[in-house]
Amino acid sequence: MIQRPPAEIGQKLEQVDTPALVLDMDGFEKNQKTLFDLVKGRVRVRPHAKTHKCPEVAQRQIALGAVGMCCQKVSEAEAMVDGGVHDVLVSNEVVGAPKLARLAELSRRAKLGVCVDNAQNVAQIKAAGANVDVYIEIDVGMRRCGVAPGAPAVALAKEILKHGLRFAGLQAYHGRAQHIRSMEERHAVIETAAQHVQHTKRLLAEAGIACPIVTGAGSGTFMLEVEAGAWNEIQCGSYAFMDVDYAKNEWAAPLPRFGHALFVLSTVMSRPSPEVAIVDAGLKASSVDSGMPGVWQQDLRYTHASDEHGWIEGKNPPALGEKLLLVPGHCDPTINLYDWYVCIRGGVVVDLWPITARGALY
Amino acid sequence: MIQRPPAEIGQKLEQVDTPALVLDMDGFEKNQKTLFDLVKGRVRVRPHAKTHKCPEVAQRQIALGAVGMCCQKVSEAEAMVDGGVHDVLVSNEVVGAPKLARLAELSRRAKLGVCVDNAQNVAQIKAAGANVDVYIEIDVGMRRCGVAPGAPAVALAKEILKHGLRFAGLQAYHGRAQHIRSMEERHAVIETAAQHVQHTKRLLAEAGIACPIVTGAGSGTFMLEVEAGAWNEIQCGSYAFMDVDYAKNEWAAPLPRFGHALFVLSTVMSRPSPEVAIVDAGLKASSVDSGMPGVWQQDLRYTHASDEHGWIEGKNPPALGEKLLLVPGHCDPTINLYDWYVCIRGGVVVDLWPITARGALY
Repeated sequence: MIQRPPAEIGQKLEQVDTPALVLDMDGFEKNQKTLFDLVKGRVRVRPHAKTHKCPEVAQRQIALGAVGMCCQKVSEAEAMVDGGVHDVLVSNEVVGAPKLARLAELSRRAKLGVCVDNAQNVAQIKAAGANVDVYIEIDVGMRRCGVAPGAPAVALAKEILKHGLRFAGLQAYHGRAQHIRSMEERHAVIETAAQHVQHTKRLLAEAGIACPIVTGAGSGTFMLEVEAGAWNEIQCGSYAFMDVDYAKNEWAAPLPRFGHALFVLSTVMSRPSPEVAIVDAGLKASSVDSGMPGVWQQDLRYTHASDEHGWIEGKNPPALGEKLLLVPGHCDPTINLYDWYVCIRGGVVVDLWPITARGALY
Repeated sequence: MIQRPPAEIGQKLEQVDTPALVLDMDGFEKNQKTLFDLVKGRVRVRPHAKTHKCPEVAQRQIALGAVGMCCQKVSEAEAMVDGGVHDVLVSNEVVGAPKLARLAELSRRAKLGVCVDNAQNVAQIKAAGANVDVYIEIDVGMRRCGVAPGAPAVALAKEILKHGLRFAGLQAYHGRAQHIRSMEERHAVIETAAQHVQHTKRLLAEAGIACPIVTGAGSGTFMLEVEAGAWNEIQCGSYAFMDVDYAKNEWAAPLPRFGHALFVLSTVMSRPSPEVAIVDAGLKASSVDSGMPGVWQQDLRYTHASDEHGWIEGKNPPALGEKLLLVPGHCDPTINLYDWYVCIRGGVVVDLWPITARGALY
């Protein structure tokens, strides 16, 4: 069930078995520095481990100043705590007795936070004996989880306090906004979200309820949240890697342009015709939920994926046995397909990082 | 990296943690019996392990008469051999020195076959010292891998024999045909494929080259191949599970209608509005490459997936904490997201099967 690494430290990139998830260390470190430099002293950074699933990445983010990690699942949080992360926010609702029991158990090993959007769930968290910071998720336009901003959030905060739990603040994350292509529209959507946050904070203050943290934001919008002034913690994850989908966004100030640092290395396994090469990386090697992978620095297109094959089309595609770097369409579900990052610097494998939260669904 | 099972044997379905990959044993066994009864004495069955990734499933197929397994990757074949399968056809081209070295190594532990579509690759297989049955893949209309039928296939067979390798026959698989909705069109496509096979066999016979096996076919067409008379081995995989995509096909004689036996169990984690429930199974729990999952036996629709969330819409969706069975849109990449099948009979967990070839990409 654990697959062995497709490479050994010291090998050249060309020697890595395929398909392999390749992390370009220079690009990765540059993306990290770009984000942390930009927001330093303005907001806390709590990067999302749902993207990287890897304590090695988490430790490097913490070394740069991250306060801890976000996770979407209790099992993901367990993998991070097992990997030495001491502060995790489960940026999601945790529902059901087995999950809450595990959350409670984990809360005795690390500083833990969790989101709620329902009074019944608050009572369950209390009953489970979880020692957690409780954040209220408000729906700022994504229409997924979350209570409505304003009065409903205040009512839920009172429930949290009534149960003797710690109300830690608000989560206001607009996931849909991350992929709105135009900067102007993205800006407008985050401005509206900021108004919802400010309104809710005002009502909480009027009710005498302190709201220490407002957490949210993703790689596609975070500087808009920072400049709006309503958030004091950001949750970006994809910025470290970038993918084809994010690259389709319009990128302009105040947002920096991150570079592609994550790749799927593939091999040409068939050359059925002059303008087609078939590679050994299909949709089990690069998730196609947000579109096909891109071909890195070559005038070729990955036009179609089946389970284990990809169609590369264009003039003079590479020969049988040649290797090709692909840029994943969507980094999060692609990383979740692999057991290892193959870390590359200067064309040489310098490290192999286990993706310990791969498949952490529960 | 290995996730612990989301259930214990003896638990009720309602107690299983979510998301979980659930196999309904009665439905699974019925699908198995349907296929093996139908083709008994007519063709050999070599089911595809790319779908199930699990030696426990393989062993049950072999017990029903399967001659062995198909795999798409050498690492998948290794997992099957490690799990007690003694006869594996890698129904794919294997290119590159590390993969061929592993193929050669594995060929000393099990009866192994491999496909080729390129003379250069034939020479590499010989050089690697692999003791394998060599099949020529011909392109019968899928336009993926494969040489053209007819003379190019005969030329490649001569290459195989020239290198002192065993020419075992042809692989003629039409993957695209599996999902053509109309029976009439699917039938026409397989008829054309059969003509390509017959023509190639005739030319091989004229060249004095024996062609013992023609292997191919999938769950959406296999009886068309059986009735066409040009194949003597079928490679179906999805028939054991079924998914939403296959269910959209028109199913009529000679093809049987398989039933859904594979599910993703999910929990309602938020109820943001009267006609929307958010479940904890998103696109990391059920691959959306072929469309959204279905909702099992309820008048509800799974309308949208994000990484860890699914939107369930309709009148009276289930309450917070209630569980919902989903039917995966596409079974192969969905199974590849999990470490365990939770096997259910009569609403009770009767077994937990490890998915040992999960993530076997190399």
